[in-house]
Amino acid sequence: MAERIHPGLSPADRDSRQRGRFITLEGGEGAGKSTQAKRLAHRLEALGLELLLTREPGGTEGAEAIRELIVHGPADRWRPLTELYLFLAARDDHLERAILPALKRGVWVVCDRFADSSRVYQGYAGEVGLETVDALHAPLLVGHEPDLTLLLDLPVEVGMARCSARSSRAGQTAALPDGSTARFEAKDRTYHERVREGFLMLAAREAARFVVIDAAKDEEQVAEAIWRAVTSRFGLAAS
Amino acid sequence: MAERIHPGLSPADRDSRQRGRFITLEGGEGAGKSTQAKRLAHRLEALGLELLLTREPGGTEGAEAIRELIVHGPADRWRPLTELYLFLAARDDHLERAILPALKRGVWVVCDRFADSSRVYQGYAGEVGLETVDALHAPLLVGHEPDLTLLLDLPVEVGMARCSARSSRAGQTAALPDGSTARFEAKDRTYHERVREGFLMLAAREAARFVVIDAAKDEEQVAEAIWRAVTSRFGLAAS
Repeated sequence: MAERIHPGLSPADRDSRQRGRFITLEGGEGAGKSTQAKRLAHRLEALGLELLLTREPGGTEGAEAIRELIVHGPADRWRPLTELYLFLAARDDHLERAILPALKRGVWVVCDRFADSSRVYQGYAGEVGLETVDALHAPLLVGHEPDLTLLLDLPVEVGMARCSARSSRAGQTAALPDGSTARFEAKDRTYHERVREGFLMLAAREAARFVVIDAAKDEEQVAEAIWRAVTSRFGLAAS
Repeated sequence: MAERIHPGLSPADRDSRQRGRFITLEGGEGAGKSTQAKRLAHRLEALGLELLLTREPGGTEGAEAIRELIVHGPADRWRPLTELYLFLAARDDHLERAILPALKRGVWVVCDRFADSSRVYQGYAGEVGLETVDALHAPLLVGHEPDLTLLLDLPVEVGMARCSARSSRAGQTAALPDGSTARFEAKDRTYHERVREGFLMLAAREAARFVVIDAAKDEEQVAEAIWRAVTSRFGLAAS
């Protein structure tokens, strides 16, 4: 089979194109993660890259079955630690059966939420604690952190206003497009502040992996900021 | 409400009867765990003790839903680490919502399989490794190990012969009464030898918690050995 040429890749990157790149989008409710993940995926595909656009929890048959357990039922259906183990089971299936095989084939992966969401929702802002979340992730994640994590950061009141607008459009019980559900959104303002703080703290802790994007701007501006971050990180020709 | 008198309890034990006792039965396939768990439960009830007879995976509404994911589908439905996270989610729900509340009310708990099964099946004899299984259990189990674990030990060939007899009675696809399924039993002889070795190693590692029972003997003799172990451990009047 003839070698494919990726016109968007710089010479340096062309040498390592055998392995794809793993990009995650993180952030609180209403930050626009799923919209921006789609836009980024399309733009990378336009460069001739093979692309897997996916989201957590879910992304494989097994992980989607686990997702059903996580997102349905009353807010107290699971204790925080039980829920974390379920997220980890879904993540392990998704990573090993979809993400890693894709990267190995040279496919680029854009994933809406990943391990940082557990670190923040169950760890930093939740009852389990960040240290325990990190410890429980260890056997799953070793060597498999994303190459780039885009943190879509915005003030809590802006995110909540966007969410209420979306919920009234979608109907009360619908699962929201960014993979979150009414279960999470019912939590109070203080919790969402803590979530924002947690993501920013992770971005500071792992500054080499994260780029913080101002997600309070309009969709076009956010998309441009993301594109600049991605092209610069991976040496792509910024078309 | 009048204080209940437990005639089977020794004076020393009567003082601490506010908290129930947590007894687990462990061992390989065909060891007779579920039969012996039932017999033990009935005999303890006959002493006037309140009793919860339960088994893993399962034992609560949430854990039974997770159990459905674990026991159905082909043998390779889950990678070993994914399966372990599912077991841990089910165990956390079962422990926190059934076992610990029961113990707190003074109820004695007899449980067919618990954490030692994960230590052996996914850890010592499986691909995950015992150290990782122990580490992933840490936040769940801290302070909640069983008061007594009865290891029903028997040669692999005896256990496998009992299992084949049971499978032909129950039909090929039925879940087996000890909570195992055809998925586990399909594994080969070497694996079952390793399972036996793993349980015996755990019993040596935690000699104060374990009592090893010779489960190759007939049902009556095994029941008597279990009863002697339980009455002696908890200072019950051996009627």
